[in-house]
Amino acid sequence: MAVIIVLGAPGAGKTTVLTKAAEQSPGWRVITWGDRALEIAKAKGLAKERDEIRKLPVAKQAELQRMVADSLANEKGKWMLDTHCSINTPEGYYPGLPFKVLEKLKADALAYVNAPVEDVMRRRKTDTSRARDAQGRKELEEHLAVNRALLGAYSAFSGAPVMIIENADGKLDEAVAKLKGLLR
Amino acid sequence: MAVIIVLGAPGAGKTTVLTKAAEQSPGWRVITWGDRALEIAKAKGLAKERDEIRKLPVAKQAELQRMVADSLANEKGKWMLDTHCSINTPEGYYPGLPFKVLEKLKADALAYVNAPVEDVMRRRKTDTSRARDAQGRKELEEHLAVNRALLGAYSAFSGAPVMIIENADGKLDEAVAKLKGLLR
Amino acid sequence: MAVIIVLGAPGAGKTTVLTKAAEQSPGWRVITWGDRALEIAKAKGLAKERDEIRKLPVAKQAELQRMVADSLANEKGKWMLDTHCSINTPEGYYPGLPFKVLEKLKADALAYVNAPVEDVMRRRKTDTSRARDAQGRKELEEHLAVNRALLGAYSAFSGAPVMIIENADGKLDEAVAKLKGLLR
Repeated sequence: MAVIIVLGAPGAGKTTVLTKAAEQSPGWRVITWGDRALEIAKAKGLAKERDEIRKLPVAKQAELQRMVADSLANEKGKWMLDTHCSINTPEGYYPGLPFKVLEKLKADALAYVNAPVEDVMRRRKTDTSRARDAQGRKELEEHLAVNRALLGAYSAFSGAPVMIIENADGKLDEAVAKLKGLLR
Repeated sequence: MAVIIVLGAPGAGKTTVLTKAAEQSPGWRVITWGDRALEIAKAKGLAKERDEIRKLPVAKQAELQRMVADSLANEKGKWMLDTHCSINTPEGYYPGLPFKVLEKLKADALAYVNAPVEDVMRRRKTDTSRARDAQGRKELEEHLAVNRALLGAYSAFSGAPVMIIENADGKLDEAVAKLKGLLR
Repeated sequence: MAVIIVLGAPGAGKTTVLTKAAEQSPGWRVITWGDRALEIAKAKGLAKERDEIRKLPVAKQAELQRMVADSLANEKGKWMLDTHCSINTPEGYYPGLPFKVLEKLKADALAYVNAPVEDVMRRRKTDTSRARDAQGRKELEEHLAVNRALLGAYSAFSGAPVMIIENADGKLDEAVAKLKGLLR
């Protein structure tokens, strides 16, 4: 295992889980898709802040995705990618890893961080540090269902196994331990 | 946005939603997959009526699909495609947009029209203008679940975003408004 | 129809259903992925018993999958493949038919044997003839959900229709009859 893609909806706790798992796993580092995209978007004059990116027109987002994928294709060593399974835009759910992007990443495994709908909704309300989507319960369930379908496609295309990591409130240690099982 | 593929199971209200959205959106027109397939099938002597097409052997359906896709690949301007996510045949659920077809369409977005199982069943009973499948509740739920999985694959392959449009009874105006949001 | 891939989770009754369907369908034979993989794995010194195979490292499993696919690409006549939709490994659910494998098989149809979670769990407890996964209910539901998503991707990629065969306790004859409908 050298390249692990960690996916999850905003509020599932993906970043918390993978940050803790990386801290406890020497030799592994985290690359955040959003940070990389922001660096590139700033350099190209496409956006100034992170939350602006997903408001970009579809074609611009696709172009930016390809540039991020190209930059990731050159990464060495052991790394986890912190990214979204899909991005909620005004045009619908945009796949986070369309095959043209995924094929460049040479993923060894996909880890999907999930949490009960109640927990995700509460976390989103509490986290005021970022502009989170104001999704209602029905829309969130829809988003999670789209994610699951995409996940199957990502796995069948790449051949990478899918690990589902449940990160309900109070179960963070189990979630971190499960992800750490991949970091060998 | 120039090419939008609108999908949905029979009875979800796909055709109603996209016809109304197109009427209110100057510059946009609707192409119905089934009509185009019927024209081509008639010309090739494969079928005489629409409902005959999905009774054709799998190989013939695949051939017809490719011919329709080739004819669509040459369409200009802004258009929505009215088609099925999957087709219920004696051999199982046949994908409406296998990758070999989808790659020719250059879709900018996928819109999936959905409705509660109850509503779909009642609409199918009422609509006697066409020979609809007599699917029971369990089979319909199965069909909708297959559609969702296919939808994820279509999106991951094409890179096009997926918009889910809920078209429950009494919510037609909201459904039309949501689709119109794509028609820019 | 010449090549039919029959999929299902351990305990869904896939092998029982397809064995009975093949017995009643002259000209059709069954190839078991696991048997073919074991023959090849033994010859290559990768494993000695069937249940060892899914404990192999991911890279070895992928290599073995490709060798099995290459051997199946040369099969003549009418045959059903008995295989898994996904394999539950320590790294997660490994796709049974990643696109690189699936493209070699030239499947005419996919048949997915399914059963209620209760029935699958009871069958797994009862069947002591093989080392079955000790999955809890939640993990089994997760496994079945991953299978459904993969199934959509397999169908969209291959263009093959998906038949869902429900094999609840006491419904074996109906399940066999449904599969036999494909064996023409």
